[in-house]
Amino acid sequence: MTGRQLHLNVNILASGAHPAAWRSPGGHPTAVVDIGHYQRVAREAERGLLDAVFLSDGVLLRGNVAAGPPITALDPAVVVTAMALATDRIGFIATVSTTFNSPYHIARIFSSLDHASAGRVAWNVVTTRDPGAGRNYGLAELPPRAQRYARAAESIEAVTALWDSWEDEALVADPASGVWARTDLIHRIDHIGPFHSVQGPLQIPRSPQGRPPLVQAGGSDTGRDLAARYADAVFSPQQLLASARTYYADIKSRARAYGRDPDTISVLPGLNPVVGSTEDEARRRQRELNALLGDDRLLAGFAARFGIDPAELDLDRPLPAHLLRPTGDTYGSQGFDDAARDLISAAGHLTVRDLIDRGIAAHRVVVGAPEQIADDIERWFLGRAADGFNLQCDVYPGGLADFVDHVVPELQRRGLFRREYAGTTLRDHYGLPRPRSRYALTTTGEANR
Amino acid sequence: MTGRQLHLNVNILASGAHPAAWRSPGGHPTAVVDIGHYQRVAREAERGLLDAVFLSDGVLLRGNVAAGPPITALDPAVVVTAMALATDRIGFIATVSTTFNSPYHIARIFSSLDHASAGRVAWNVVTTRDPGAGRNYGLAELPPRAQRYARAAESIEAVTALWDSWEDEALVADPASGVWARTDLIHRIDHIGPFHSVQGPLQIPRSPQGRPPLVQAGGSDTGRDLAARYADAVFSPQQLLASARTYYADIKSRARAYGRDPDTISVLPGLNPVVGSTEDEARRRQRELNALLGDDRLLAGFAARFGIDPAELDLDRPLPAHLLRPTGDTYGSQGFDDAARDLISAAGHLTVRDLIDRGIAAHRVVVGAPEQIADDIERWFLGRAADGFNLQCDVYPGGLADFVDHVVPELQRRGLFRREYAGTTLRDHYGLPRPRSRYALTTTGEANR
Repeated sequence: MTGRQLHLNVNILASGAHPAAWRSPGGHPTAVVDIGHYQRVAREAERGLLDAVFLSDGVLLRGNVAAGPPITALDPAVVVTAMALATDRIGFIATVSTTFNSPYHIARIFSSLDHASAGRVAWNVVTTRDPGAGRNYGLAELPPRAQRYARAAESIEAVTALWDSWEDEALVADPASGVWARTDLIHRIDHIGPFHSVQGPLQIPRSPQGRPPLVQAGGSDTGRDLAARYADAVFSPQQLLASARTYYADIKSRARAYGRDPDTISVLPGLNPVVGSTEDEARRRQRELNALLGDDRLLAGFAARFGIDPAELDLDRPLPAHLLRPTGDTYGSQGFDDAARDLISAAGHLTVRDLIDRGIAAHRVVVGAPEQIADDIERWFLGRAADGFNLQCDVYPGGLADFVDHVVPELQRRGLFRREYAGTTLRDHYGLPRPRSRYALTTTGEANR
Repeated sequence: MTGRQLHLNVNILASGAHPAAWRSPGGHPTAVVDIGHYQRVAREAERGLLDAVFLSDGVLLRGNVAAGPPITALDPAVVVTAMALATDRIGFIATVSTTFNSPYHIARIFSSLDHASAGRVAWNVVTTRDPGAGRNYGLAELPPRAQRYARAAESIEAVTALWDSWEDEALVADPASGVWARTDLIHRIDHIGPFHSVQGPLQIPRSPQGRPPLVQAGGSDTGRDLAARYADAVFSPQQLLASARTYYADIKSRARAYGRDPDTISVLPGLNPVVGSTEDEARRRQRELNALLGDDRLLAGFAARFGIDPAELDLDRPLPAHLLRPTGDTYGSQGFDDAARDLISAAGHLTVRDLIDRGIAAHRVVVGAPEQIADDIERWFLGRAADGFNLQCDVYPGGLADFVDHVVPELQRRGLFRREYAGTTLRDHYGLPRPRSRYALTTTGEANR
């Protein structure tokens, strides 16, 4: 192993990342409501020594459910608890939106999960931009990006203060003396800001990781800034190596500007590996899933993703240049739009079908034999385009099992990936030290921030 | 077994209901943050064929944590998931406040838990009256009772509509045809009321119980009304048989007035059984726990509960009549206040120590041999003062194990309690039918409410 450590998460998307996953022979049609499915996938990921399982989230019924399951259904706290209790070492990254939830609620959920998992949980900090989600929470309109991100930043400040509100030594629990807690080491946070007012303390003694790590996916300028300031890991959607290198350097440089060691923030682009024993087999695998979906739905999914009328498209012709919607609005996901535009302009000859097969509607797809996928990972990792990847497999658990059985050993042979877990917490997997409470006095008597 | 069925829940209060539980030889000092503890207690309760485990909740650090653990710490969704996965048949009643949480969030949590537990969860509907909780959620003052209950009623309407938003037949998940869901059977709820606006539908197919049962603890007139209108089970704090009979008759009659079958609403007073092989042994057990706490803390706990200066009290003298605080305010828990006043006026000669030992600061304590405790349960059950009980044991898991080993068999011998679970869901345990979605058309073509 080199000093630098490759990090791999897997994003469980119900039956799988391919929209026909639920119909495939290895797929699970009702995976999205089957807690046992999530546990089986988590065990598979742990067998592969992955850093963490990632759960995206949204608070609305999203997607065309006539044709396939929604990506998310069950509450992430329920799913993460179930997965944590079915595993021993792998971490979990759960998504909870700062747009609807109060800092006290968020702090309590993650502290609870951190206790229940013995220190294996992280918070993926998001803001919500889907109007349908707003209407489920009584908001006719969602705030524009700048305001959502300002609220997210304030939420992080309040949540992390609540996590720190019990110093480590506050919990005594000594039956002999009868002292359960040292109240001088438990602190109100008295947070007052434009969006939140939170007294504290949290009702839970400090959790195993002290503060669960923070994860963020920042594409816009505002988002990158939030990520660089607070995140321990950053998700990103780049399609091209050159753009990923630029993004990587930008995040590290912004982190440095905040006085942080850039090595403590991991940049993790999305990657959808389609594994076969040969490249031909991998391509056949992708074609078979596409065939199960059918050309009409393949096209409809693409058109819906980019807000294009399907009648204007032909799967086997290039995308008309005028059809990609403009970026820069304050509601969309700028990162995904930039990545899609990148792919199109770098490869203008690609047909719509090619673009879909390359993952333009979500994350970058790499199709090939295990060595080819390992080559790609190595190139991005050594090229400082990535510190690791957030994997999305076509079908769960089968697609992940293939990655674990064939790609992970190849990465290990190349000295890029761990052969065993070095620690027990998610902080350990990411190489992050356990922070002291901001309220703890240093040896010089100053509070520790 | 008679036709009428005794229902028993157990309220897990961290280390135990006695404030010295955490220090006792059988106690667990850090139970409140140990998910394994909750799982062990749930398994013990299932061994006793109890209907459900109950988790109370609050969103603040409450109680004197210098002297003992808080009653609640970890988030109930996390704890219930862990307990459900460690058991097969017993139900779970989780508390989530309507004062802070949106209906969409509540509906999603309980639908998720119902899926994860295969139909074994119920929602304990509460309003929050603790100002400290308000300050954790940005509210300088909490609304008065009438407004809190109006919001609770509206929350129930919106939450149950969301649970119904997918008809049972909406989930198809047929790989052959490629139809995952019938969108004509998935409904927006379009709820608009004074407190909430919720579009829906929920993002989760209808859960195993259709609608998880509703539990409520209504003491005040407003609270009783809410319980009689919506609840499948009602918790109550009566200390005396006569008052419990009056309360019981009142709830059933209010339920009848709402057009409900009164047999479908179970009245479940709190009961704290202290079990010994003889009455003497049981009394010794209580004395030993009291001694572990010490007279000062015993008195301080009582004084804090009733807002009395401890200097005005003597453990071994009767309570001065003028010291009990008046009821009828719009913030306190009227049910508990009424019950405490009852106990004092019915037994004016009792010392403060006696009152504490009888459970005046929380729920009624019955100390005795298994037959004596069974006698008490039988008297209340046959006397139509209770359809069952919400048990609180002095120490977990030991106090519950004693109840399961010695009182449950005695109740079974008397034909009062089940010898096996008759069904698999919590609705089954409570004898409640599974409701159809309100959006489903009846055979005559009318929507089903």
